[in-house]
Order: sequence, then C-alpha cells, then structure tokens
Amino acid sequence: MLSISKPTLILDEEKCRYNIKRMKEKADANNQDFRPHFKTHQSNGIGLWLKEAGVQAITVSSLDMAFYFSQAGWNDITVAFPFNVLEAGELQKFPSNCHLTLLVDNEQAVSCLIALGLPLSVFIEIDSGAHRTGLSMSDKGSILKLIIKVRSSENLSFKGLYSHAGHSYQCRGEDEVKTVHKYLQDNLKALKHTLVEAGEIYVCTGDTPTCSVGSHFAGSDALSPGNFVFYDVMQAEIGACSYNDIAVAVACPVVSKNAERKEICIYGGAIHFSKDSVEIDGNQSFGQYVENVGELGWGNVVPGCNLKGLSQEHGILQVTDAVFNKIKVGDVVKILPIHSCLAAQCLGHYMTTGGMWVEHFVSIKSQR
Amino acid sequence: MLSISKPTLILDEEKCRYNIKRMKEKADANNQDFRPHFKTHQSNGIGLWLKEAGVQAITVSSLDMAFYFSQAGWNDITVAFPFNVLEAGELQKFPSNCHLTLLVDNEQAVSCLIALGLPLSVFIEIDSGAHRTGLSMSDKGSILKLIIKVRSSENLSFKGLYSHAGHSYQCRGEDEVKTVHKYLQDNLKALKHTLVEAGEIYVCTGDTPTCSVGSHFAGSDALSPGNFVFYDVMQAEIGACSYNDIAVAVACPVVSKNAERKEICIYGGAIHFSKDSVEIDGNQSFGQYVENVGELGWGNVVPGCNLKGLSQEHGILQVTDAVFNKIKVGDVVKILPIHSCLAAQCLGHYMTTGGMWVEHFVSIKSQR
Repeated sequence: MLSISKPTLILDEEKCRYNIKRMKEKADANNQDFRPHFKTHQSNGIGLWLKEAGVQAITVSSLDMAFYFSQAGWNDITVAFPFNVLEAGELQKFPSNCHLTLLVDNEQAVSCLIALGLPLSVFIEIDSGAHRTGLSMSDKGSILKLIIKVRSSENLSFKGLYSHAGHSYQCRGEDEVKTVHKYLQDNLKALKHTLVEAGEIYVCTGDTPTCSVGSHFAGSDALSPGNFVFYDVMQAEIGACSYNDIAVAVACPVVSKNAERKEICIYGGAIHFSKDSVEIDGNQSFGQYVENVGELGWGNVVPGCNLKGLSQEHGILQVTDAVFNKIKVGDVVKILPIHSCLAAQCLGHYMTTGGMWVEHFVSIKSQR
Repeated sequence: MLSISKPTLILDEEKCRYNIKRMKEKADANNQDFRPHFKTHQSNGIGLWLKEAGVQAITVSSLDMAFYFSQAGWNDITVAFPFNVLEAGELQKFPSNCHLTLLVDNEQAVSCLIALGLPLSVFIEIDSGAHRTGLSMSDKGSILKLIIKVRSSENLSFKGLYSHAGHSYQCRGEDEVKTVHKYLQDNLKALKHTLVEAGEIYVCTGDTPTCSVGSHFAGSDALSPGNFVFYDVMQAEIGACSYNDIAVAVACPVVSKNAERKEICIYGGAIHFSKDSVEIDGNQSFGQYVENVGELGWGNVVPGCNLKGLSQEHGILQVTDAVFNKIKVGDVVKILPIHSCLAAQCLGHYMTTGGMWVEHFVSIKSQR
C-alpha cells in the first residue's frame, strides 16, 4: 500500500469523471461545442478521461502546454492566451495534423501571424467584463477592423470570438452567478447582431462559474471551462459547486502542535498550495480541513477549522479543541485547496484515491 | 545571444555575490557562525558562490533539499523544518559523511529519532515571537525536558536552540527591524541564562530582516538567513535592503495593451510569481516594474507603475501614460518579485545577466 509522507495531491477519479460527464452533457443538451480548458489539470492521464467522455477539442493557456497535449494526440487545440509574438518561432514545431487556434486582441499579433505564413485559426478575444484582456464588447469598430485584417490574410482563418468572463469569480452565491451568466449570454447575443455585417460569428466562452450554474446559452456556441474537472474551495464559495463536488485534496503530514493556540503545523506551504485565499466566516482561509476517510479518501469539511497561514513549507491549521486532541504528530490531514489549478501546478503529480500516480505537465517538462 | 520569449528569472550575479560577501563578513565580524539558508536559491550553482565566499555549513527546509545539496558535496546541513516523522526512512539514504542536524519541538519527533538509532544532531526549535512553530521561549520546563530527552539518547547529539524570528516580516522600516532585532537578541541571551543548568547553549537564528539590519548579536552564536542572497520587494519594503540590492527580476513578454485603462498585459502570472503581494502607496502590488538596461539587465523602479493583478498566466501592469506609450506588444518588461524564494521556486531556472543558465532544485527533481 502506498503511504503519504510528503504533501501530495489526492485525486478522486470518480468525482472527477462525474464532473466531466455532467459538464459534457450540459454542453450537449444546450447545443454548445465543448472545448474544455486543460490548464487546470494539465495532465495526459486526466485528458484521457475527457476523451473517453467524448471530448475532441481542447483549450490550453500556453504554447508549451499545447505542445505537450499535441504529443499525446490532441489535434484541435485553442491557446486561450493573447498570442505572444516572441514565441512565433515555436509554432513551426507542431505536428502538421494539429489544428491550432490562437487568441489575438491586437493588430501587432495578427501582423506577426500573417508574416509567419503558417495556416492557423484565430479567435479574436473580447472583454465581456473581466477587464483583463480582449477588445471591449462595445468597441464594434476595433473588432470589425481586426476581423477584416484576419480575413484578408492568405494563411489565417477567422474562427470567431472568445471571451473569458473572469468577473464571475467576484460572485458569492448561485444567484449572483446566474445574473452574470444571463448578462454575459445576452451581451454575446447582442454582439453577434451588432456584427451582422461580418456574417455569422462563432462565440466561445468559458469560465467555470457561469458554465456550472447557467442554463440558457443564447449567445455562445462553445464552452471552454477548465476548473470544473476538480472544482475547489473558491468555486464552492462562489456558488459554482458544492463542497462534495471537489475532486482534489492535499494530503499533508502533521509535524508540530501548539496546545496554547490550538494550532496544528502541517508540512504543506506556499510551494504546495500557492497563496490564493478566500474569506470564509470572517477568516482568511488558505484551505479547508476535511475529515479523513481511510488513508487516501476524505469526507466533509470540519466546522471551526481553518488553514490560516502559509509560509514556504509550513501551513498553520487553526482547529477546535476536539480536533486538536484527536490529531497527532505523524498523522496525515487533508485540505481542500482554495485554487485547484495552482495547487496542481505546485504539487506536480496526482495520486488517485485508488493509489495510482497520474502525471502533471510540470513534472515531465524537460530541463532547459 | 540568448533571447527571452517566456517568463524568465534573471539573476544579477554581481549583486548576488555582493549580498553574500556582505552577510558573510557581517557574521564573521560579529563572531557568528554562518549557516545560510539555501531554501531561497535552491541551486547548486549559487551554492558554489556561497562556498567560494567561505560558507561550509548550510540550512535547508526539507529532507529532499538536504539530499540534493548533500549530493553536491555539502556535508554540514541543518534541516530547519520540524522533523517530519513520516520521512524518517529517508534519513537512511544520506551519505555517511554528511552531518545532518534536524529541528524538533515535540517529544514524538525525538522519540522517533531515538527509535531510528542513526547518529544525528538535533536543534530544539524555540518560538521567539513568530508563533508558527517551536517551544515558547518562556516555557523553560518544556525546553529543559526536551534537552534532557535528547541528551539521554545514545544516538542523538544536542546541537542547541534554533529560532526563526519570522515576526520581523511585519516590520516597515529599518527602525522597526532594529527594535525586533534588539528584543530578539536580548531574549535569546536571557534564555541562555535561564537554561544555565543545561550548560552552555549554542543558538542559531536566521531571518533576513534582523540579520541584515541588526548590528549586535548578543544572544546568538550562528546566523542562518536565506533571502539575503537575492532580497526582493518585500525585503525592501520591510527595510532590510535597498531596491538596488535586489539581485533577481522576472523578465516577461508583453502580449496585450489596453489604452483606456493604461494597462499592459504580460505573460507572467501566478504560476511564475506565486501570489504574495505587499501594499505600496496604497496599492496592492504583486511586483515592481523596473527600467530595462539592455536585454538582460535592469535599473530603477519606475514610479507610478504597479503589477496590480495576477491570474494563472496573465499579469496586469498598471502604468503611466509615458510608459504606456513606450511599451509595445512583443517587448520584454522586467519586474522585481515580491517574494524571490517563491518566484524562484515557480520559475525553476535562473538566467544570469551574463546569459548563462543556472539550475534550480525544482527543475532537476526527477519524476516519481
């Protein structure tokens, strides 16, 4: 039997496959193409579960990640990050049967892709309210100008519009997410009408909260959520999932206890969880402590406990008297991560609740 | 000539070697053993620079890291993290000429080490105010009890007391750090007197702020700071260094611009910087933008600019009109990290300003 001696990301395959199945069915039922974002799991092993669920097109957040998945046979890949012109040379190395779609929101990027001369698809990124990247939805002139520039090239194919409604992460509760979802879909629908002179436009959108909670997809044609495969504490607090849907937990050895402060020090810090936090019941939380179920499984969140701080390798878990008395140095506790994408990136491997290792892209990246 | 196309941690070897030299000389001048913490750089290459400066004993934060450095010939290594009894088996794999010193703050850990039977040195960890781990300085009874338990064993050797004054990170300005330093050193001195019945006690302490700013080391015998090799924005804001002392910067490609918000989107996010932030002039900052000096060098912090947000791969840099107009998509900007230990861990390699790659432990860790 495997035993945990270091911080380890445990993956519940059953929950993960269920999350995948549910989102795929939702996309199908709403006539949405499903182009899930693989930046959350970054794993060929988990990618296979998505393939088994019927997924054929995927989304990633870097060219390196696109290349990793292209090597595993994925051949319809969107890189949902503003095209980085300094990496233009890397586009040459992709297999010729791999159909890449890149994201652009500026003329320089398009000019660079035209000069490159490779046959590529292009999504124009639209800012639907997250105010991170993308052309403003209201800036019809700039959007049309960029569409025309893409279409006028010999090598580029205009795929459509792409938008990440990252502002849904500010929501707290399902109702707020539903409001953002409706507004987003209505706006995307209106945008299509506004741009009618450019013909019928394909729209892909993909934040996990609105895809999880929304039920009518009047403005989009494709969905590319990523986090839904695992979910996490942040998504549960947003209202995108229940705590029971969360498919990953970090197993951490207990290395010290402080009776006066009722604190447990775990081997598990910023280099394992990253440092995202959410406010829960007035406390800043870096993770939620859950009951152990056997060595590799977990149950419910334990009320009154909070991962209150992280330094490089240490985590400080504030607990109740009852929990303090139960936990011993040398035990392994399990913590639901605040942000599963970052925890997976930090930890670099998954161990399934069935005791199998599953690879993560970061652990197989070769040395420079 | 090397060119930057992805987020890359640039290392100024000259500044780094100067930071090392200065701290080594300070330790020598104050009759302090110098046992620098290698958790910041985690690099055999940079370790060599410390060796060249006369360093013989080192400190690390995990057994894995200790093993990495033992393979490079370091043979006096303190693992400054509460001993994790679940990793006891890994102690067997260290070369026999490698002298390991472990940290303990509880009886279970000591019992485990006694049962193991290996010849090992032990520091007892003392909480000098950081309230993270360690026995309280005021708890003379527990400290003596643990010393006696260690000394009564046949295989363990009591090395002394170890304390990380992490509360110095709450300081803002040199005067506050000096106050914490004086209080720390006075308390360590008093503790030695209190424990006089246990004989003369060796004390090691090691946060970068007090080691950088303090000038009298009345209570300690050894210093183990780590961050000083690079420093970072956090240390500059604490008052432990000047911005000019910072020896690392993250080079990030510019991928998008928003004229309305005067924002530059860079390829550089939470997976490159981690997510530590500090408040500077009322703004939450995830990094400080500096002028470029050639392709790999950098100059001063540019006033009025702020890395205001990080998502997984994106960073949003708020800039002045002048900077906005100067920076183009396809440029590379440089950002001083808030927390250099975490940025180094995330980025996994260094490129020196002279254009050489230097390895980081995370990039050579083998697959499971």
